[in-house]
Amino acid sequence: MALKALSSLSSNEYETFLNSFDTVLSDCDGVLWLESEVIKGSPEVINKFKTSGKKIFYVTNNSTKTRDQFLDKFKKLGFNATKEEIIGTAYLTAQYLSSLNFNKKVYLIGSPGIAKELDSVGIRHIGVGPEPMPTSLPELVDNLNLDPEVGAVVVGFDIHFSVPKVVKATSYLERKGSIFIATNTDERYPLDVEGIIMPGTGAYVAAVQTAAERKPIIMGKPEAYIREYLVNKHKINPSRTLMIGDRCNSDILLGKRCGFQTLLVLTGVTDIEQAKAWKESADKDENALVPDYYTNRLGDLLPHL
Amino acid sequence: MALKALSSLSSNEYETFLNSFDTVLSDCDGVLWLESEVIKGSPEVINKFKTSGKKIFYVTNNSTKTRDQFLDKFKKLGFNATKEEIIGTAYLTAQYLSSLNFNKKVYLIGSPGIAKELDSVGIRHIGVGPEPMPTSLPELVDNLNLDPEVGAVVVGFDIHFSVPKVVKATSYLERKGSIFIATNTDERYPLDVEGIIMPGTGAYVAAVQTAAERKPIIMGKPEAYIREYLVNKHKINPSRTLMIGDRCNSDILLGKRCGFQTLLVLTGVTDIEQAKAWKESADKDENALVPDYYTNRLGDLLPHL
Repeated sequence: MALKALSSLSSNEYETFLNSFDTVLSDCDGVLWLESEVIKGSPEVINKFKTSGKKIFYVTNNSTKTRDQFLDKFKKLGFNATKEEIIGTAYLTAQYLSSLNFNKKVYLIGSPGIAKELDSVGIRHIGVGPEPMPTSLPELVDNLNLDPEVGAVVVGFDIHFSVPKVVKATSYLERKGSIFIATNTDERYPLDVEGIIMPGTGAYVAAVQTAAERKPIIMGKPEAYIREYLVNKHKINPSRTLMIGDRCNSDILLGKRCGFQTLLVLTGVTDIEQAKAWKESADKDENALVPDYYTNRLGDLLPHL
Repeated sequence: MALKALSSLSSNEYETFLNSFDTVLSDCDGVLWLESEVIKGSPEVINKFKTSGKKIFYVTNNSTKTRDQFLDKFKKLGFNATKEEIIGTAYLTAQYLSSLNFNKKVYLIGSPGIAKELDSVGIRHIGVGPEPMPTSLPELVDNLNLDPEVGAVVVGFDIHFSVPKVVKATSYLERKGSIFIATNTDERYPLDVEGIIMPGTGAYVAAVQTAAERKPIIMGKPEAYIREYLVNKHKINPSRTLMIGDRCNSDILLGKRCGFQTLLVLTGVTDIEQAKAWKESADKDENALVPDYYTNRLGDLLPHL
């Protein structure tokens, strides 16, 4: 049944499909909007899902914004969203540490967005902002001033990533019992400028992970931590949940790992030829990227709702 | 025969062993010295090898020094070394690009040591030194000024590693035909300060490699490029070559990959219990770390020379 076009369903089958889930998780960029432009029909579909009683969650790997900041964008683009429906990796990081009753300090390689989410659950942190390199390594080592209270390291997207930050993160991670969290491991940050590639959080996580010689727990897609969060906090039923995404190796893979149904829309990263090739592949890792359903755009569902 | 103690050899067997190689490759830190302290007996053994007609090469993953800078240290500690015998990764990088008749520019994440080695073979380069991050990503993107002549990226140890450097390296690596070189992939830089871990070149290579979504050619141990260099440039015979090291996952693994004989000395990183465990392991990757011979220290050979 995998990789079935929604357009090939009979109206009975379509109805069965729509009744088979009562929770919808949706990726944002590439499904709902492209940068600051809404994708036609997406707000109407999501809003109709909601008025018909389905739970909605917006799932994004972006760690630089708080939920309040995301909410502004959702409202501006016509989504009847609430703060509770928005699950970013900054928020998940704060929730995760909170669920552990973490009461030490976090050393944070990241942005003010994560810092604010930690603040909102009362978790102390240090590290945000520039930390310039002194002129030599001995000078760095002599003036490092490690904080004895740090018991966790969080790595997210940080434009001020520097050698002193990696040294501190790695040294803190050597402490017994220390917690290591990465917001996500995206290789690249979406940027549509000819000839320029913007490294994603995954690049900086790779540096810290290599030197620390240990792996982080990852909050973002495609890691399954989000399932634990949604089941515990929002009592969702995974088998009656639909994950919608434009990118198979994050959105769809997340859905498959969590036991959700999956729908690929073709308004973003993955194209249908790629998905078909993965379906035919003998490689199980590639098979795991194949969604249950696909459609050109989310707005295609509108006439059926 | 693997993991045989030199001390268990009969004098005939010892002689056979000593006659079985005419080239000696030696790691430096942990075999010849520890930081700035010579390890007793090491200079005498190396110097005797040399006077008895064996070729000597010093093989180090350190990319921050030129061969001239290394030579000073060798002489100060009593080794009759020549510049040609010193094979550092900065030198290998310059040799490798030179062997390709590379005539574009190198974008270098690294130290003045690599820069000087590139200068000495006439290869143009940019990138050494601090490159601070502007206050925002859009500002960075607007002022990136990528150089149209860059056709290779080299990543070595660089205390000024920063986001603009990763963005540039990754963008250059997206160019068709561009060359990607890492001096080494050591996870940590040796530093004996309580509570502080110093990330090695491997951490910064991991960041660039992740964002570039491609792997570099690696100059340093345990990658086998050095074999190609020594066979082509110095006509060594791998089966009559002995690799001496203190660290199995770089020195000994290099030797095994290159078809050299291997000798572990116990004055550095790997201890004998660890080596024995790898010998008994069912894991082939761990078996590949087991040296042919071991001895407490290099100076143990002195009475037999």
